[in-house]
Amino acid sequence: MPDPYLLTPGPLTTSAPVKQAMLRDWGSRDETFIAMNRRVRARLAELAGAEDTHVCVPVQGSGTFAVEAALGTLVPRTGRLLVLVNGAYGRRMVQIARVIGRDCRFLETAENEPVSPAALDRALDEDPDITHVAVVQCETTTGLLNPVEEVAAICARHGRALLIDAMSGFGALPLDARRTPFEAVMASANKCLEGVPGLGFVIVRQQALEAAAGNAHSLSLDLHAQWRGFEQNGQWRFTPPTHVLAALDRALDEHAEEGGVAGRGARYRRNLRVLLDGMAALGFVPLLPAALQAPIIVTFRMPADPRFAFDCFYEGLRRRGYVIYPGKLTVAESFRMGCIGRLDVAVMQGAVAAVANTLGEMGVRSGAPQRDGDSTP
Amino acid sequence: MPDPYLLTPGPLTTSAPVKQAMLRDWGSRDETFIAMNRRVRARLAELAGAEDTHVCVPVQGSGTFAVEAALGTLVPRTGRLLVLVNGAYGRRMVQIARVIGRDCRFLETAENEPVSPAALDRALDEDPDITHVAVVQCETTTGLLNPVEEVAAICARHGRALLIDAMSGFGALPLDARRTPFEAVMASANKCLEGVPGLGFVIVRQQALEAAAGNAHSLSLDLHAQWRGFEQNGQWRFTPPTHVLAALDRALDEHAEEGGVAGRGARYRRNLRVLLDGMAALGFVPLLPAALQAPIIVTFRMPADPRFAFDCFYEGLRRRGYVIYPGKLTVAESFRMGCIGRLDVAVMQGAVAAVANTLGEMGVRSGAPQRDGDSTP
Repeated sequence: MPDPYLLTPGPLTTSAPVKQAMLRDWGSRDETFIAMNRRVRARLAELAGAEDTHVCVPVQGSGTFAVEAALGTLVPRTGRLLVLVNGAYGRRMVQIARVIGRDCRFLETAENEPVSPAALDRALDEDPDITHVAVVQCETTTGLLNPVEEVAAICARHGRALLIDAMSGFGALPLDARRTPFEAVMASANKCLEGVPGLGFVIVRQQALEAAAGNAHSLSLDLHAQWRGFEQNGQWRFTPPTHVLAALDRALDEHAEEGGVAGRGARYRRNLRVLLDGMAALGFVPLLPAALQAPIIVTFRMPADPRFAFDCFYEGLRRRGYVIYPGKLTVAESFRMGCIGRLDVAVMQGAVAAVANTLGEMGVRSGAPQRDGDSTP
Repeated sequence: MPDPYLLTPGPLTTSAPVKQAMLRDWGSRDETFIAMNRRVRARLAELAGAEDTHVCVPVQGSGTFAVEAALGTLVPRTGRLLVLVNGAYGRRMVQIARVIGRDCRFLETAENEPVSPAALDRALDEDPDITHVAVVQCETTTGLLNPVEEVAAICARHGRALLIDAMSGFGALPLDARRTPFEAVMASANKCLEGVPGLGFVIVRQQALEAAAGNAHSLSLDLHAQWRGFEQNGQWRFTPPTHVLAALDRALDEHAEEGGVAGRGARYRRNLRVLLDGMAALGFVPLLPAALQAPIIVTFRMPADPRFAFDCFYEGLRRRGYVIYPGKLTVAESFRMGCIGRLDVAVMQGAVAAVANTLGEMGVRSGAPQRDGDSTP
C-alpha cells in the first residue's frame, strides 16, 4: 500500500525526487556540499525579496528551533518583545521568550480573529520600551492569515523591529522585504517549500545580525555565531543534516519550476477551493470566513451528529489513504485538513470522496456542526 | 562517479538500505511513526544497558544540541559543573555551560593525554559544591579514548552525577550503565550507529530527569519537557525529522544484525588495524600510542617532506574517492582519517592505496613527520 497523503500542517507529503535526493552521503566540509549551502541560502533570501539587505541562516532542528534562535539572538537581554497572539504559535513565542528570560508582553485576540493592527499601534504609542514585535503570518492553529503588511507598516512607522513567524506559508504566501519591512522571517524546509523536516531558517537583516553578537541564550541556537560560521568558510558550525539539506535543494528546484511563490500559491489555492467546496457539499462548516482563510490548512467545526466520532473518522480516512489532523482550538471542537505539500486537485478530490465514504460507513448524514446559539450538551 | 567514502568524524558513509528508508513520508502523529519512536528509544537505551533505570530522549539537531540539552536540563541553575578537558569537545562543553549561565570549572590535560582520574578525585575532595562532572568518551579532536570507567567510579564514590559525551563512540565502544554508572550519556544517530545526521539523543537516569523540571534555559532544548511529551502521547513536542528517524530505525536493525556493540566495534578495530599498518608502511606516524587510540578516528602528524601540501593531498584522495578531515589539534600540524561508518577492510585498503598513489603524484617519498626535538623551520 502506498504511503497515505498527509493533509496536515507538517510533516507533509513530498515528491519522489525530493526524497531521492537523500540517497547520497555528503561530507559536510566538502566543496560540493559547501556549494549546496551557498545555493540554498541564496535562493531562500531571494524568495523573500531580501537578497540585498538580509542573510539566510539555516538552523538544525524544527521550525521552533529557528524561532527560538531568532528571538534569543535578536531580542537583546535588555529588550522588550511584544507578541501578537491569536493561536498556539503566537503563544509559543511568548513561552519561548519567558523561558529564555526576555521581557515579553502580548496582545491577544480570539483564535478566529486576526491580530489587531490598531491595538498594536496604541501599544507602541504607549510603551516606548518595546523594541521588537513578533507575529505569526498564517496561524496554523486555525489556518488564519494575519495582516502582516499592516503590522509591518505600523512597526516601521514606530521604528520597532518586526519578527515574522512565516513557518507555514513561506514559499506560497507572498512576503517581500521591499514591501513588508521585517527584521527577521522564520520558516522551515518542510512546509510550503516541500522539503523534508529537519531544518528551519531565519532570513535576517544583516545589520541587525551584526549587532547581535553575544545576545544569545544558547550556543546551538546562536544565530549570530551560526552566520559567522557560514561567512568564514561556508560551513555549518555543528554537524548539518546533510540529507535534509539536499532534499531542500531539490525542493527549491521544483519550487522554481512551478513558478516560484506565485505558482506554488496558485496550486494551494486550487487545492483549498476543492476542499472547501467538497466539504461544504457534505455539510461541513469551516471555522473561518473566506477573507481570513489562508490556502494552507482549514479548521472544520466538529459535526453535531452523535454518530460522528473523530477517532473513527480519522481511522476511516487513514485507511483510505489520507491523514488529517486533530484540532488545536481552545474555543471549539474541531479538526483540520491541510492543502499544502505535494498534493494537487486530484488528491484533494480523492480526500473529499474519502470523507464522504467514511461518513457513510459511520452512518453520519451530514458534517454540519451544532449551530451557534444551540445549547451544547 | 559514486559518492566518495567519508573517512571523517561525521557525517559518515551510510548503507544503501539506511538511505532508502528515507524514501517515504510519515505523519508525525500517526501510529506507525509513534511505534517507530518507541522502538528507537527502547533500543538505544538497551544498547547502554540502561533500559531499567534510564530513558532515551531524542533531540532534533546535531549532537551538540543534545549535549546542550543535557547540560541545560540536568545541571540546575544553582549547580556547579566540572568538565574534564583534553580536546575541542571537552572545551565545547565548557563553552556551552558558560553561554547558558551554569557555574563551570574544568580540569585540562594535554590533547595527547587522557583526562586524569587522580586530578578529578582531588578536585571532588576539595570542592563539595561540584554537583556534576562531564567527560568525553572518545575525544575526536585526536581519537583518544578517555578512561570513563575510572571517572565514573570516582564520581560514584563522591556522589556526583556524571554526564558522558559518547557522541563518536556510542554503539561501537562498550558503555553499560550497570558497570559504568552515569546520569546521562549524550550521543548521535550519525556516528557509530550509522544513521544519517539530524538528531542526537540523551540516555538519562529517569529519577534525575524527573527532578529536572524547570531547569532548562531553552524551550527547544528542554530535555525534561521533551521527555514528558513522549511519555504523554509517544510524540515529539515539535516537528521531528521523520526521515532521519526512519533511517536510524533501519540503521539499528543493521547494528543488531552485525552483532550489536561487539560486532560493530570489531569491524572498526579491523578497519583501524588496516589503516594504522598501511599508513605506517608509508612512513606516517599517528599522534597517539596504541593504548590511547580508539577505533574511531586517527590523527596523523603532518609529513615533514616540503613537497607535502595538505590541500593537494586532500584533493588527490578526494579524486580517488576518499574524503579525509583536517586536524583540530592546537599542539601540532595534523590531519585525521576515520574508520567508522559503512566502511570495511577493503575500503580501508583502498584508502591506503589512494594515499600511496597521491604521495607518488606529489613526489613525496615518505609520510614521516618532523622528529620530536628537530628544530621546526
